[in-house]
Amino acid sequence: MLSYEDLKKEMKQRLTPYRYTHTLGVVDTAEQLAKAYGGDIDKARTAALLHDCAKTMGTEELLSKARENDVKIDEVSYHQKELLHGPVGRIIARDKLGIEDSEILDAIEFHTTGRVGMTKLEKIIYIADYIEPSRNYPGVEELRNLAFQDLDKALLQSLNNTIQFVIKKNGFIHLNSIKARNDLLKNTYTNQ
Amino acid sequence: MLSYEDLKKEMKQRLTPYRYTHTLGVVDTAEQLAKAYGGDIDKARTAALLHDCAKTMGTEELLSKARENDVKIDEVSYHQKELLHGPVGRIIARDKLGIEDSEILDAIEFHTTGRVGMTKLEKIIYIADYIEPSRNYPGVEELRNLAFQDLDKALLQSLNNTIQFVIKKNGFIHLNSIKARNDLLKNTYTNQ
Repeated sequence: MLSYEDLKKEMKQRLTPYRYTHTLGVVDTAEQLAKAYGGDIDKARTAALLHDCAKTMGTEELLSKARENDVKIDEVSYHQKELLHGPVGRIIARDKLGIEDSEILDAIEFHTTGRVGMTKLEKIIYIADYIEPSRNYPGVEELRNLAFQDLDKALLQSLNNTIQFVIKKNGFIHLNSIKARNDLLKNTYTNQ
Repeated sequence: MLSYEDLKKEMKQRLTPYRYTHTLGVVDTAEQLAKAYGGDIDKARTAALLHDCAKTMGTEELLSKARENDVKIDEVSYHQKELLHGPVGRIIARDKLGIEDSEILDAIEFHTTGRVGMTKLEKIIYIADYIEPSRNYPGVEELRNLAFQDLDKALLQSLNNTIQFVIKKNGFIHLNSIKARNDLLKNTYTNQ
């Protein structure tokens, strides 16, 4: 298995400088969240470092890589192929970067859509991706604060923002995001 | 089978005056939309008249009626039981009001959530429910105009509004609404 430093060098090669800076921000934020919520810090750092390992692949490359590896291509991902960088990222992390830990691989796979029953690590990576220091959108500061107060509420807010953003740009909404949101709502607000 | 006038009397009994006024608005709007888009006017009027026939049932009554009739109760409808007034409305329309036409029954069943592959009648009832004259919310006038220009775009806009409204009130989003929206987006904007 590659050391963390080797993985870092590898990611610097694979990403654009802009995306690499974003990734280092996700690493820092994920580490802080893991500390705040008693998560596994090493796993959080590694998952954060690798979460976008397939991000610079073109849509045709993502599609053929997904097909080669029997990744399920749902209708929404077929129409919005950049969503495949999650599941294809899992394949790259496993086959090219030597990651065997299934928790890390799951966090990479589901960092864009979320899913029902997300683990603490998956939540941390999803949120860290959304609030790392280089992110800049209305409400990001409130979300940064919320993330260190209540992980589930911050996740719900992030999912809500994503759904609203996708509606505004007339894009497809992934069913996993709705299922993740409903699941969270059920657990967080059981009195509804 | 009951005549339209008999059904009207029956609905006046079943609904609150407020809801009955809304229903007559849906009938008028559905009739206009059916004329504009070459739909079946009689079916549109009947489906519109009966769409809320289960609306005044309490949540426990909706649940037991659904269970008695083997209506599938998905997780979202379980948590937001008022959504059951669509599928339970279908049962009431069939068993108590003598409606045998499956297109009318489908339009009643799916008037709240929508679904993949909606028929013209289902779209008309969904939209008429949303824009009938007594509805009053920001953007309703634009939507009224859009409904007579492009039925699918008006449906997409209605689904978007509903999803955003549900997010704001922290409610569960029904998967059928997302599937209906994605389906529509795929057909309307095939270049995405």
